[in-house]
Amino acid sequence: MASKESEAVRQHWAANRKAAKENRQDGDQELADHRWAELTTEPADVDYLAVPGRRAQWIVPHGAAADRVLLCLHGGGFVGGSQYSHRKLFAHLAREVGVRALVFDYPLAPDHTHPAQVDDAVDTYRWLLDQGIAPEHVLFTGDSAGGGLTITTQLRARSVGLPLPAGAMPFSPWVDFEATGASYDENRDRDAFFHRDLVRGLAWIFLGPDGSPRDPFVNPLYGDLTGLGPIYIQVGGDEVLLDDAQQLAAGAEKAGVEVELDVFPEMQHTFQMAAGRAPEADDAIRRMGRFARRVLELR
Amino acid sequence: MASKESEAVRQHWAANRKAAKENRQDGDQELADHRWAELTTEPADVDYLAVPGRRAQWIVPHGAAADRVLLCLHGGGFVGGSQYSHRKLFAHLAREVGVRALVFDYPLAPDHTHPAQVDDAVDTYRWLLDQGIAPEHVLFTGDSAGGGLTITTQLRARSVGLPLPAGAMPFSPWVDFEATGASYDENRDRDAFFHRDLVRGLAWIFLGPDGSPRDPFVNPLYGDLTGLGPIYIQVGGDEVLLDDAQQLAAGAEKAGVEVELDVFPEMQHTFQMAAGRAPEADDAIRRMGRFARRVLELR
Repeated sequence: MASKESEAVRQHWAANRKAAKENRQDGDQELADHRWAELTTEPADVDYLAVPGRRAQWIVPHGAAADRVLLCLHGGGFVGGSQYSHRKLFAHLAREVGVRALVFDYPLAPDHTHPAQVDDAVDTYRWLLDQGIAPEHVLFTGDSAGGGLTITTQLRARSVGLPLPAGAMPFSPWVDFEATGASYDENRDRDAFFHRDLVRGLAWIFLGPDGSPRDPFVNPLYGDLTGLGPIYIQVGGDEVLLDDAQQLAAGAEKAGVEVELDVFPEMQHTFQMAAGRAPEADDAIRRMGRFARRVLELR
Repeated sequence: MASKESEAVRQHWAANRKAAKENRQDGDQELADHRWAELTTEPADVDYLAVPGRRAQWIVPHGAAADRVLLCLHGGGFVGGSQYSHRKLFAHLAREVGVRALVFDYPLAPDHTHPAQVDDAVDTYRWLLDQGIAPEHVLFTGDSAGGGLTITTQLRARSVGLPLPAGAMPFSPWVDFEATGASYDENRDRDAFFHRDLVRGLAWIFLGPDGSPRDPFVNPLYGDLTGLGPIYIQVGGDEVLLDDAQQLAAGAEKAGVEVELDVFPEMQHTFQMAAGRAPEADDAIRRMGRFARRVLELR
């Protein structure tokens, strides 16, 4: 059974669904992001450094390796989320891995449509390499929309001649912008917020009039995953996006990429946001930590 | 008329009153603190550095003077609040002043009663001086319970032989632990949360079985304010704590201390928490900035 602390994640999504139904969503995105962040505790002994001239911050756990970096791609359906909604979550993760993390704000839809997001992610990755960080010491991680970006950003970066990072840790990744998965039906009554129409609506907003859901920089399963570093995927068992994770795992395996998928029973979308509170989230963070330390060749 | 952004502060307090009446306050103090912090926006270009070995963080606006410090005493009735509830608020203020700020968690009641709080504040001030910061380059600031501490900590510090800081900027200060003020009656229907019984209850919890509301390290008006540096007080016109601010201003003036009081019409308790959103809060921050730069001899 889901812990009562993880139940708070379900309640968060249920409240969002209720607000959406009643059309009383707050127009203040920063406030909405702050409310998402309330699921996560403040981890101790972490510094947060605003990057001059970029909408980004370094998350620096005390004692972290300076030369290894998690590049963090926040979720929020490409219409929400920010470095602030996910600051504490990625800090828990960076602390567990023992490295610095860089989290940044990419441009959001509907003001900015694809490929603004993936291009901004590539630009941030390039900037990171320019700081002297070796690509094999960078691991991409992110949830939901950001989970998809952990793969599409690699394809896009390779297409412009940049070296690939060590690997990726997407959780609750969104890759299928046509929302074809069987889990949309199977988990329809279990997922507290997402459903097919909502996800197709988000895809439509993100793609704009000219975008295609089969663009490989949108859905990486239409791209060539060959040669990518190891991928470790986490997903909640009660998500309608469960099939996205499974499709990504299958696609990676087919391309000969080392891939591992952990399905967390009874968990909701991005249940890791309850880091510091819920045992399932803390377990998920620990598992990501083990993968990350191996791939980044730490200790 | 209060701006619609400041109306959010009133709504915050009204929701807290409703929750208290229905006895459904969340036992999770960190969550409650996070919800208080949602009133405040994230200021840009500020670093947050956890202090090793202390429950404290440095708030470092980019370009801040390194040798001038705001020592920040958060509010929360001595039973709540933290470095995290007030991180963004004090960051807005530090940014406006152009200095670093140190915010810390003092022990909370009921687990810890007076004088644990004022002693911890003195200990933090001593630590700050030990870092090589000159006392005349330190300004105490704080709201509500922390507002009272901006004065009592000075008296307590002096009593143990420490030098006084440059001055103090209490806002919505709580100094009268007997709740005698006429504003308890006059603003009873205007203050969205506080009332006499609640404040006396908080005082009782804070003082414990042996404490006295007339202890000068509890209510500084029973102490000797002579020789203190300049004091700039802000308070909301709709607060039941309005008289606390006026009593403190009168007491300081009587002791020959330079003191200034700004009453903000129609504002609630600690309305400055809406910094970055509400014009009244931003105006208040700007006024504190002017006072602080003068007293700290900046520019």
